[in-house]
Amino acid sequence: MTDVDIRPATAADLPAIVAMLADDPLGARRESPDEPEVYRAAFERMAADPNQHLVVAVRDGRPVGTLQLSVIPGLSRRGAVRTIVEAVRVDATERGGGLGTLLIEWAVAESARLGASLVQLTSDASRTDAHRFYRRLGFTDSHLGFKREL
Amino acid sequence: MTDVDIRPATAADLPAIVAMLADDPLGARRESPDEPEVYRAAFERMAADPNQHLVVAVRDGRPVGTLQLSVIPGLSRRGAVRTIVEAVRVDATERGGGLGTLLIEWAVAESARLGASLVQLTSDASRTDAHRFYRRLGFTDSHLGFKREL
Repeated sequence: MTDVDIRPATAADLPAIVAMLADDPLGARRESPDEPEVYRAAFERMAADPNQHLVVAVRDGRPVGTLQLSVIPGLSRRGAVRTIVEAVRVDATERGGGLGTLLIEWAVAESARLGASLVQLTSDASRTDAHRFYRRLGFTDSHLGFKREL
Repeated sequence: MTDVDIRPATAADLPAIVAMLADDPLGARRESPDEPEVYRAAFERMAADPNQHLVVAVRDGRPVGTLQLSVIPGLSRRGAVRTIVEAVRVDATERGGGLGTLLIEWAVAESARLGASLVQLTSDASRTDAHRFYRRLGFTDSHLGFKREL
């Protein structure tokens, strides 16, 4: 998949990213693509934080995939830095073609480059295809992921 | 539990925090309390990041609990800010006395104060007591937590 480029997202990519976030069984209920100002404000906050890496995978100039990589310094595991992968999406036209693998492998390589010794993510219990995908990429589902909405 | 104060950790608290991280079935294999310089470097990195909140619960001047709260801005869920709780530990002398509840309730309240709409954490599948504890505190284990070591 040499014709896809993974690069930092810009504000111009936001409509495409939000469309991908919304085009998803869970995201459809959670997102509001008709309120771009909400996402623009969030993007500015992410862009101001050097530990947030929002990227897009681009083919022929069009964003067709995205993820967010967050860098978390910490004390545990001998002061290990860990990264967290969130909001992984692949455009419907690209699914099953290896783009998800490319994105996660990018996140793993970038995490190592940033000095992390652990990459982690949570995946909704209903996303069984995603679970197989992450196991195949060397991830172990050793943990339960707990959430509480505020 | 009005005689316990939760406050930001300082470098002087590091030996007590590291001792708590190591006094744990999983932590015992992962930590090196005899190498304080490792933890001091990690502490400096955390202290320089305004999105990392390392706290201690203090009784009679002594740290008896700790956790790390990380703030993660993001695009998904309408630009929601989420927080992540890591490295929750309660001193062996305090276990079963409600200090864990106090720490997690502090993390939830602080997350709301910081503008987050979601608090999340992962708990090792072997920590079944912790799972009951988090469910009782209003957390839902809706996700699988995947990790990959680098």
